[in-house]
Amino acid sequence: MDIQPINLKEKFNSFSEFWSPKIIGELNGQQVKIAKFKDEFIMHQHEQEDELFLVIEGQIKIELEHKTLRLNAGEMLIIPKGTPHKPIGVGEAKVLMFEPKTTLNTGNIENEFTLKKPNKI
Amino acid sequence: MDIQPINLKEKFNSFSEFWSPKIIGELNGQQVKIAKFKDEFIMHQHEQEDELFLVIEGQIKIELEHKTLRLNAGEMLIIPKGTPHKPIGVGEAKVLMFEPKTTLNTGNIENEFTLKKPNKI
Repeated sequence: MDIQPINLKEKFNSFSEFWSPKIIGELNGQQVKIAKFKDEFIMHQHEQEDELFLVIEGQIKIELEHKTLRLNAGEMLIIPKGTPHKPIGVGEAKVLMFEPKTTLNTGNIENEFTLKKPNKI
Repeated sequence: MDIQPINLKEKFNSFSEFWSPKIIGELNGQQVKIAKFKDEFIMHQHEQEDELFLVIEGQIKIELEHKTLRLNAGEMLIIPKGTPHKPIGVGEAKVLMFEPKTTLNTGNIENEFTLKKPNKI
């Protein structure tokens, strides 16, 4: 296996869609994904998977049932499985996610945002 | 469970030791750890665990058997299990790691660097 550094900025520059996670790495049955956030995603939950969001650039909000959290670049949040959450991009934001490879982006919901097979980039 | 943002800068500012990983999050049997790197660590390998290094600040080198890779801030590297590697801080560097919670910092080696129970911060 070729072991090479992965440059986040280059990876983010290689696509422009919002809410379309790309796989940039795999380890221990988990995937590292990146996505661009803008405006509101949908409220959803993952029944079996905890999910980590790390903001690389910009600002996001994560709406939970009883509060809304704001995350700036350099901040991360872990959403435990079974927790309804709605990600929101404040303007445009670049986000890294770490989650099991079984994780569907829209969790328990299936709609036009659902991406069954994220691309590897 | 209280769901709160985790600020990487604040976490890095809360300790000063080198090569002493701190746990800042757990999800799906994996841990998110941060550590300060400076000078050379030891060559070691993890038999069962893939390991991810993401450079948050500064520069590191990862020496492998047949090459040495250099990573700047915003770059990450996945070391597959069973791969000998020696992390090196070029000056002082701040690094985030994702790995299974079973991962011992010195892998197959036990010496003065070995940290059996990393602290949660």
